[in-house]
Amino acid sequence: MIANRTMESNVRSYNRAFGSTFDRAAGAEMFDETGGRHLDFLAGCGSLNYGHNHPVLKAALMDYVARDGLCMSLDLNSTARSAFLERFERIVLAPRGLDYLVQFPGPTGANCVEAAIKLARKATGRSNVIGFTNGFHGCSLGALSLTGSSHHRAGSAALLQQVSRMPYEGYLGSGLDTADYIDRLLDDPSSGIDAPAAFVVELVQGEGGLQAASAGWVGRLQEIARKHGALLIVDDIQAGCGRTGTFFSFEPLGIIPDMICLAKAVSGYGLPMSLLLLKPELDCWKPGEHNGTFRGNSHAFVTAAAALEHFWGDPEFAQTLADRCAAMQRHCGQLADNFGLRVKGRGMMMGLEFTDYGMAAAVQADCVRRGLIIERCGPHDEVLKFLPPLTLAPEQLDEGFAIVRQALTAVLGDRECTAQPRVPEFQPA
Amino acid sequence: MIANRTMESNVRSYNRAFGSTFDRAAGAEMFDETGGRHLDFLAGCGSLNYGHNHPVLKAALMDYVARDGLCMSLDLNSTARSAFLERFERIVLAPRGLDYLVQFPGPTGANCVEAAIKLARKATGRSNVIGFTNGFHGCSLGALSLTGSSHHRAGSAALLQQVSRMPYEGYLGSGLDTADYIDRLLDDPSSGIDAPAAFVVELVQGEGGLQAASAGWVGRLQEIARKHGALLIVDDIQAGCGRTGTFFSFEPLGIIPDMICLAKAVSGYGLPMSLLLLKPELDCWKPGEHNGTFRGNSHAFVTAAAALEHFWGDPEFAQTLADRCAAMQRHCGQLADNFGLRVKGRGMMMGLEFTDYGMAAAVQADCVRRGLIIERCGPHDEVLKFLPPLTLAPEQLDEGFAIVRQALTAVLGDRECTAQPRVPEFQPA
Amino acid sequence: MIANRTMESNVRSYNRAFGSTFDRAAGAEMFDETGGRHLDFLAGCGSLNYGHNHPVLKAALMDYVARDGLCMSLDLNSTARSAFLERFERIVLAPRGLDYLVQFPGPTGANCVEAAIKLARKATGRSNVIGFTNGFHGCSLGALSLTGSSHHRAGSAALLQQVSRMPYEGYLGSGLDTADYIDRLLDDPSSGIDAPAAFVVELVQGEGGLQAASAGWVGRLQEIARKHGALLIVDDIQAGCGRTGTFFSFEPLGIIPDMICLAKAVSGYGLPMSLLLLKPELDCWKPGEHNGTFRGNSHAFVTAAAALEHFWGDPEFAQTLADRCAAMQRHCGQLADNFGLRVKGRGMMMGLEFTDYGMAAAVQADCVRRGLIIERCGPHDEVLKFLPPLTLAPEQLDEGFAIVRQALTAVLGDRECTAQPRVPEFQPA
Amino acid sequence: MIANRTMESNVRSYNRAFGSTFDRAAGAEMFDETGGRHLDFLAGCGSLNYGHNHPVLKAALMDYVARDGLCMSLDLNSTARSAFLERFERIVLAPRGLDYLVQFPGPTGANCVEAAIKLARKATGRSNVIGFTNGFHGCSLGALSLTGSSHHRAGSAALLQQVSRMPYEGYLGSGLDTADYIDRLLDDPSSGIDAPAAFVVELVQGEGGLQAASAGWVGRLQEIARKHGALLIVDDIQAGCGRTGTFFSFEPLGIIPDMICLAKAVSGYGLPMSLLLLKPELDCWKPGEHNGTFRGNSHAFVTAAAALEHFWGDPEFAQTLADRCAAMQRHCGQLADNFGLRVKGRGMMMGLEFTDYGMAAAVQADCVRRGLIIERCGPHDEVLKFLPPLTLAPEQLDEGFAIVRQALTAVLGDRECTAQPRVPEFQPA
Repeated sequence: MIANRTMESNVRSYNRAFGSTFDRAAGAEMFDETGGRHLDFLAGCGSLNYGHNHPVLKAALMDYVARDGLCMSLDLNSTARSAFLERFERIVLAPRGLDYLVQFPGPTGANCVEAAIKLARKATGRSNVIGFTNGFHGCSLGALSLTGSSHHRAGSAALLQQVSRMPYEGYLGSGLDTADYIDRLLDDPSSGIDAPAAFVVELVQGEGGLQAASAGWVGRLQEIARKHGALLIVDDIQAGCGRTGTFFSFEPLGIIPDMICLAKAVSGYGLPMSLLLLKPELDCWKPGEHNGTFRGNSHAFVTAAAALEHFWGDPEFAQTLADRCAAMQRHCGQLADNFGLRVKGRGMMMGLEFTDYGMAAAVQADCVRRGLIIERCGPHDEVLKFLPPLTLAPEQLDEGFAIVRQALTAVLGDRECTAQPRVPEFQPA
Repeated sequence: MIANRTMESNVRSYNRAFGSTFDRAAGAEMFDETGGRHLDFLAGCGSLNYGHNHPVLKAALMDYVARDGLCMSLDLNSTARSAFLERFERIVLAPRGLDYLVQFPGPTGANCVEAAIKLARKATGRSNVIGFTNGFHGCSLGALSLTGSSHHRAGSAALLQQVSRMPYEGYLGSGLDTADYIDRLLDDPSSGIDAPAAFVVELVQGEGGLQAASAGWVGRLQEIARKHGALLIVDDIQAGCGRTGTFFSFEPLGIIPDMICLAKAVSGYGLPMSLLLLKPELDCWKPGEHNGTFRGNSHAFVTAAAALEHFWGDPEFAQTLADRCAAMQRHCGQLADNFGLRVKGRGMMMGLEFTDYGMAAAVQADCVRRGLIIERCGPHDEVLKFLPPLTLAPEQLDEGFAIVRQALTAVLGDRECTAQPRVPEFQPA
Repeated sequence: MIANRTMESNVRSYNRAFGSTFDRAAGAEMFDETGGRHLDFLAGCGSLNYGHNHPVLKAALMDYVARDGLCMSLDLNSTARSAFLERFERIVLAPRGLDYLVQFPGPTGANCVEAAIKLARKATGRSNVIGFTNGFHGCSLGALSLTGSSHHRAGSAALLQQVSRMPYEGYLGSGLDTADYIDRLLDDPSSGIDAPAAFVVELVQGEGGLQAASAGWVGRLQEIARKHGALLIVDDIQAGCGRTGTFFSFEPLGIIPDMICLAKAVSGYGLPMSLLLLKPELDCWKPGEHNGTFRGNSHAFVTAAAALEHFWGDPEFAQTLADRCAAMQRHCGQLADNFGLRVKGRGMMMGLEFTDYGMAAAVQADCVRRGLIIERCGPHDEVLKFLPPLTLAPEQLDEGFAIVRQALTAVLGDRECTAQPRVPEFQPA
Repeated sequence: MIANRTMESNVRSYNRAFGSTFDRAAGAEMFDETGGRHLDFLAGCGSLNYGHNHPVLKAALMDYVARDGLCMSLDLNSTARSAFLERFERIVLAPRGLDYLVQFPGPTGANCVEAAIKLARKATGRSNVIGFTNGFHGCSLGALSLTGSSHHRAGSAALLQQVSRMPYEGYLGSGLDTADYIDRLLDDPSSGIDAPAAFVVELVQGEGGLQAASAGWVGRLQEIARKHGALLIVDDIQAGCGRTGTFFSFEPLGIIPDMICLAKAVSGYGLPMSLLLLKPELDCWKPGEHNGTFRGNSHAFVTAAAALEHFWGDPEFAQTLADRCAAMQRHCGQLADNFGLRVKGRGMMMGLEFTDYGMAAAVQADCVRRGLIIERCGPHDEVLKFLPPLTLAPEQLDEGFAIVRQALTAVLGDRECTAQPRVPEFQPA
């Protein structure tokens, strides 16, 4: 048998850090082909908010497959599609007083961002789009133009234009509110920044280093967008579906975006699916104008509908999630305290920032050796990132952080640390 | 319950022509929520070459889900991934003497085309890419630049550049070989066409009207690409995986592309998955340079591997498929004969071209009313397109064409037709 | 003293072929610093249609300078500007029944082409522009992209490279009318060619090899442009101002362009000046939207006005010019005849095409050695190009062609030539 | 006679503010067709640093024209060209220890900026270019896109709009050094700002509102450019040729740019001419790669050479100019003091900034009525701009400022003003 290594292109990435060949998984645990157990603090980069193969979702999927439920459906009407839409409306939108229309733009987050940009350009008649430093929105040649990472941009000599890059909150230090700068540029008819169709922003920058925007800054952004006739698009691909402690990441921030991009965890089972939410008045699409074969992944509809009902339809889930977020915050604060690191992020997407990038790498590698699947993020991969399933058991969270502490101790030494812990300053409005 | 119609964006398309709400499906048959049976001559736009929920593939998937097989895997090594790669090498590549490397660029065909363009630009250091009249390669803002349809391009005012459009075979009539024109443009240092990184071509234009390129023209294209230092990329997203009668559409044409894009039917079950095949010497990717969450859809690996083994690993499948293609050709020829239409396409992707576009629409609508799921293609939707599962029973093929004949008779009348049938001129090399 | 050669960038071009250092010039004669005389068959690439330092124009300029006439004027109203506009209206536009508005877009032809594109995009709301194989319209690249002012950027919402390249007349051989191809592409909603704002075309391609469009083809082009809502812009920068035998190159072709670009010879004296003529209904410019310091070169206005009065205001000039064109045609025909070459171009911009590019170079070099300033053009510099002042004496024309004959004989030998002469097929409507 | 107004396009601009029709001019005085005298504080937007029709330059031009000196010369070697180059080397470059090569990129400043961008991209192999808020570098848009020749297209492989806009010094207020922001963006691999080929910067922003960069900030910019492998291009089109008090605007700032763009005043007489200075090691042009008909305007060479000799070759000119700058500064300071305005700019390009934009317009209009030709600049035209000839008499400067004072008094009233004058903070290194 020919191994993956020799048949696959050099482009593969994750399997370099995590050398095992995985076979099966359940909840927060993954098992490799030799039976070795790994604790999962990566969760498919945020695609597995309810863990691997959750039994309720699995049962729904098995039933559906067994009875020859329609699998591939283009964008035909189907009972699976209707069932998902009904639950999304009843469980997610209606209780939050939201009246978005739904578009299925294709299976990936990049599909969703591209549909949002296309629609914003069409609705406003403008072409410029505002992206932010350290933003990440996918690698398609259109979506890639919004993505900051030069690593991902290097492969595409062309087509990256018509995006103006703005500093995210805090990028210019505490002395200057970057929203003021953005407002000034758009007020100034000779700043060289053309009137934008939209701002596309992540409220927690999942790949860019876990910068978490404050309610104040995000509110200013919405105000500036409206003042200048631009749409506010929230990319909630990684931060949505409960990752920050609420279904949408913007809920505690006091804004209502014009469009919202969801993907990754929306199917609940790790199946490819994305969702664009758009205000009804923006729906200037002609039928079929944005297209794609895999806009209706029925298996994903089935597991997504089951997840909505099982978790978000359960009044107690919010509290469980809040408890888990509090534990995450506590763990991060203690480690930061003990090892002189900086806490980043919020909710169930938090991390520890190292000033020494090499140490971040060493700590990750040590965690992996100890059986913890964990990644880094940030421009220099300097942030160790905790992205476990939202539904892991408290003991699993403790177990994971114990491994992190062991790795930190091994790499940094059992140092007496006097540095002040730097808990993130985020305060909901 | 809120119906799809009110919650979904206006962008939805297929569910307008096919108003039913579908529930389950098996083989070439789909059943709506009222139990109504429909015969499927669309096959998920070519994503269901082995029909809906094929029992062998279904069993493999059920087993995998039941045993908690890893579902979402980023691009981690997994037993499912290895098994697929092993079979693809053993059953597809090795017997054909091909040594491509494999890249999983994301779940959609557009992901695959974008990866191919990026890599071609990187490998050649050039940015221009040659696309063809009536080509269709997806709707992402990068991939969209290659797509001809103004309908799909209208939503994106920007980012469509760096593509030079060339006439497909026959576009300039029989008096002029468009390959000569392309060669002249590239020879002429002042033609205004910059040296291209790649030609991206479909060998049968699935959406553009079922133009089928001849061995002679495709051979010239390969020769011209080589002469001018450009790569030849075959988009086999719709025409591949057996659709034209061989696994790859280029097999009878005597060429070896530098890259091949596969998607749609590659999973065998209609699950989102794509595949880029690239010559080893082109593999200048850095790790992770092309990225995406859903590059490893394990369920798709499982069904894809089962399909390769069950169909392509079976020596008799080639003959069955050839028989079905011959029947398709015979049916098309007879209808063309009787109704004065023109036959387009080859293999199991054929169609009938109407000069009166309204009649094409009327015939399709009549077919749908009679329980046949069927689409049109071409710049003016003037080609009625036959795209059934490759594996349908001979009686189902006959049944489908009987419906088409009834619809033609209803719309066109039982006319005495003296027009010569126009069987496509395709001759394998 | 430091010579040019050491102080100047490597980018200089003409002074490589013509090594002399020139000092003064009159009519069709140039004199170098050693007093050597050269006959000028290049005429500043068509900028000196009335020869060097024509005495009537020179007198007008001297008077103007002597009396402190305003030189640099931005676009202020001036007596020099008014006088030019009055004569242009009275002598050029009114007698031809034309009612164009005039814009002074800056001193260069490229300024003029850019203003035309900007205005066409603004007037039509489209961004695509059709250019032709072997077209030449200047080398500007987009300084605007660096400029901040939204006022100045507003006229160019569209992407700078959005140009679709079409085959010029004859590019596909005699069997296919390229106008048919263009029409088909624009009719076909899936050809990949977006609806254009404008066609920009030279009626004789001065740099591209002296292809001369026929009345039939140009008429089709105008018809196709109108049918598809595009403007027809004639770039008459090299072919205008009498170069083809009439003031505008389109006069014998039966069309009325929507815009006309003039530059090069418009000042009559070789001073930098360009002119955009636009139909009044297209004048949707806002004040100052297209800008530039040197839009009003008063010295050029003065010599241009004098040239209009002296030449075009003189009823006998048309006949003199026709005689000179006939002599040019006769000379070219005879040389083509004798040496088996192909005649290109029309009027006073004609040439001889060599199939052996090296021979073209050798013949040019030999001409230069014999005191004839002459250039080549075409994609491979394969056309020896005759571009003398329109006003040279018949003896000077004879003298120039005698030198060419000597050079041809020296390079090609005194061959017996049986090849049919290929006189250009151009026939005025 | 048809008036300008009816024949010219709506695009004309300056002649709206200055309604007179001008006829002749000398020094700092312009005379309209009725004999009315106007004092010129605009100087052809900085093209007439030595005033209108300076007698020494005029004599040189008259002699040259009279003796049939070559006028139009493409880029042929000529005695006029050599004489200019010799003086530029001897009088400008050598005494300042500069070893730039010279390129004549065409007659306009935009030509020069475009040549600089093309060359920077070619030399660095990068495409991104950094521009600044409120920068102004011309209005050209990309005629090259229409030109077929690959020779001419080769220098511009990059995308035309690939410009990243950065905040100029002071744009973010006094609390933040914008150089720090720029440095951070370029250090951050995920900022979204690609590594630039060049920074293009005006050291005094002539159109953008007379922001004057400090030595400290400009030094940082040079340092940052070098650190990141980018070239520093100074656009000295308006600020060069003595306008700020030294020949180049960077002389007191302690930097040596990699390229310098000169135009406007370089001919000394208001004739169209531009000049690119480039470090010899950057000269990777191929012959003719940047092209254009009017690259050699001999009349401009003649007046430019005369101006260099007469002014910059005279040791006393520096002192005269310094005196004039001091008087300008004194006048501005006093008016700012008395009327509560802010002083902008430096040298002989200074202005007064109004917070009430309407008042700026009213003051300008009142000045024009009183016979002063004067313009405004800035994003909102809020800065009254003083740009007289460098060579005007002290009494003329006093006269002009007396008019400005009268206009200010008329519009703002004879107010008691307690606001602190804000003299610009510029301090040479």
